[in-house]
Amino acid sequence: MKNKFAKRLSTGGSSEADEIIALIMKLTEMPEVISFAGGLPDGELFPVEEMKSITHKILSEDGNNALQYSGTQGLKELRQSIAEQIMKDAGVEATADNIMITCGSQQGLEFSGRIFLDEGDVVICESPSYVGAITAFQPYGPKFVEVKMDQDGMIMEELEEALKNNPNTKFIYTVPDFQNPTGITMTVERRKRLVELARKYDVLILEDNPYGNLIFEGERLPAIKSFDTDDRVIYHGTFSKIFCPGLRIGWLCTTKEFLDQYLVVKQSVDLQTNTMAQKETALYMKMFDLKANVNKIIDVYRRRKDLMLKTMKEEFPENCSFTHPKGGLFLWVTLPEDKDSSEVLKKAMEMRVGFVPGIAFYPNGNHRNNFRLNFSSMKDEQIVEGIKRLGKVLKSL
Amino acid sequence: MKNKFAKRLSTGGSSEADEIIALIMKLTEMPEVISFAGGLPDGELFPVEEMKSITHKILSEDGNNALQYSGTQGLKELRQSIAEQIMKDAGVEATADNIMITCGSQQGLEFSGRIFLDEGDVVICESPSYVGAITAFQPYGPKFVEVKMDQDGMIMEELEEALKNNPNTKFIYTVPDFQNPTGITMTVERRKRLVELARKYDVLILEDNPYGNLIFEGERLPAIKSFDTDDRVIYHGTFSKIFCPGLRIGWLCTTKEFLDQYLVVKQSVDLQTNTMAQKETALYMKMFDLKANVNKIIDVYRRRKDLMLKTMKEEFPENCSFTHPKGGLFLWVTLPEDKDSSEVLKKAMEMRVGFVPGIAFYPNGNHRNNFRLNFSSMKDEQIVEGIKRLGKVLKSL
Repeated sequence: MKNKFAKRLSTGGSSEADEIIALIMKLTEMPEVISFAGGLPDGELFPVEEMKSITHKILSEDGNNALQYSGTQGLKELRQSIAEQIMKDAGVEATADNIMITCGSQQGLEFSGRIFLDEGDVVICESPSYVGAITAFQPYGPKFVEVKMDQDGMIMEELEEALKNNPNTKFIYTVPDFQNPTGITMTVERRKRLVELARKYDVLILEDNPYGNLIFEGERLPAIKSFDTDDRVIYHGTFSKIFCPGLRIGWLCTTKEFLDQYLVVKQSVDLQTNTMAQKETALYMKMFDLKANVNKIIDVYRRRKDLMLKTMKEEFPENCSFTHPKGGLFLWVTLPEDKDSSEVLKKAMEMRVGFVPGIAFYPNGNHRNNFRLNFSSMKDEQIVEGIKRLGKVLKSL
Repeated sequence: MKNKFAKRLSTGGSSEADEIIALIMKLTEMPEVISFAGGLPDGELFPVEEMKSITHKILSEDGNNALQYSGTQGLKELRQSIAEQIMKDAGVEATADNIMITCGSQQGLEFSGRIFLDEGDVVICESPSYVGAITAFQPYGPKFVEVKMDQDGMIMEELEEALKNNPNTKFIYTVPDFQNPTGITMTVERRKRLVELARKYDVLILEDNPYGNLIFEGERLPAIKSFDTDDRVIYHGTFSKIFCPGLRIGWLCTTKEFLDQYLVVKQSVDLQTNTMAQKETALYMKMFDLKANVNKIIDVYRRRKDLMLKTMKEEFPENCSFTHPKGGLFLWVTLPEDKDSSEVLKKAMEMRVGFVPGIAFYPNGNHRNNFRLNFSSMKDEQIVEGIKRLGKVLKSL
């Protein structure tokens, strides 16, 4: 049979990124490996007992509806709780009409690519940026322009330069809170400036905020969307890091004009998100205290992050630097410029320890001396042992 | 703000189809309406009690995993049960490796469009055809070529003509069993001939089979895929009509070469399908008798179909003809050529009864004198009353 595949399939990611992903997949199949590669929450923190009573209650009181088809936008009770609890906490005034439920925030990102990107359009993003967003946008053929960060997030002068040089920009993609992969948080001043610049150059902002509630130090910062006065910020949220990722419940928060387009896409793509999972999430927010659950998660992740950093200071060679995240799931290691973290990974895997090489997070490649460490999914003793092993590998270079 | 949307958004469906969909949406919000418009299973037939014990068991024994991220292809235990129970019943030899779990079969159809269709490629389909498949393929810009059906399904001479005239054909899309919207079933002889023709003209076949198990008369016919000797049939299945649609569990069955492409798409689009819902479906198939559940559904739908046809014979004018489906959820009414079913719908809605005008199911339009009736979701007395009202409208024309 001749090649049947659509041309768009050949415009995927680099073969190197594919190789890394293959390597990491191999990693996950080796249970004895200490892996700092994934972005998995700790399953032991899931509210299993509460879920038991919730599912029982839903099936007892409303089973026929819970297992039936439901509307494309998502259940109103869930959209309302998201607007009134989560979006409000982030400083965003929204109602249920501004929210659409998606299968995780990943689906929202993919929809955003589909709705806004023509081939050759420019996406401006942090350098490095979330690999899942890159792969979601890539099939639509954009050019990625990366903007450097410092410890306060995207550097605004560099962003303005990028906007000036790329009149074809459709949107700026950013993870402002405890960014994946670096753990860096954008300051409030820069959030305001970002919205000003988006207005000045008439582009949209895709705010991707999966980690904003996982705060180790200080208060929740106002979302970029809270500074949005002319509907140019599209907020992407998810319950995956604050509740249960397996339920695949995410959301979009935006204006009705945009939501209408998202709804057409959602309808044609998968009709709707799982009804039962939506009811479970809504009832959890009603019957239990989501914030208390988040605080429980925070206590564990903060301790693990501290332990990881402490062990890194003891075990890593002095020529390695790393971020000190104030929340989230990840931190970011920088090696001397002549080192290649993909090579480090190969050696680390021989010692049964894994991470994600930084190259995966740069849409245009060209950065070899970084890697990402996840601190949410391994136990304390695994963190200490894994970091010791990694230290040995790094010292041997 | 200038128009930010991607060009592909403007290549959507006709405004008439949009109007019809808007009308039908309005219908669903009017609870006092007797609606034969949707394709909803009867929620009272869902195995709610069984789901209670299943969810309790899963959360008690494996809660942390059930609520956690899981693999992109889907849970192996579920894929295995699909291969060994459902695909085997349809005459298809397959293993878990040939199956990928999707969010309903709608997602599988959308993925197929994405993976195979370039702009201007030809999709050959039945005339009329499933509207959800048309809207899933449409964004990829294909040309639809419709092939006439008789009571034995797609007419093979017309299909060969279409294949001859359209060397640019990528795939033939078909719903062989109790087709949506007509209720027509393709004979075994034609299934074999379809595969021969696909081979001769080197095109793929997308077999969409949501209703194949809902059999009122006779045996389950072998799937088209059961005659596939060189991996050109991609089978799209779903639990929505035989278990619980709200769980959004569908699947694809195809060769590894193709599945690899579907996996890349699934990964970038939404990572994976809901873990809990997959476990629930797998455990249901293990602990309970899916066939017994299907038989319970069949008994109710068969009775409703019989009642609807009996009432139609009594109440509809003689110039209306209609199909006599041997399974599924739908039947198809043909009015005299000069009648317009969209006009009929407007009058019917004044009498608080609804259906879907046939025009929605013709990708190239041009057919105004048909409509689809659903017989699965309304109770007996609603069926009788609704058909009586419709009869009055039709007689008044």
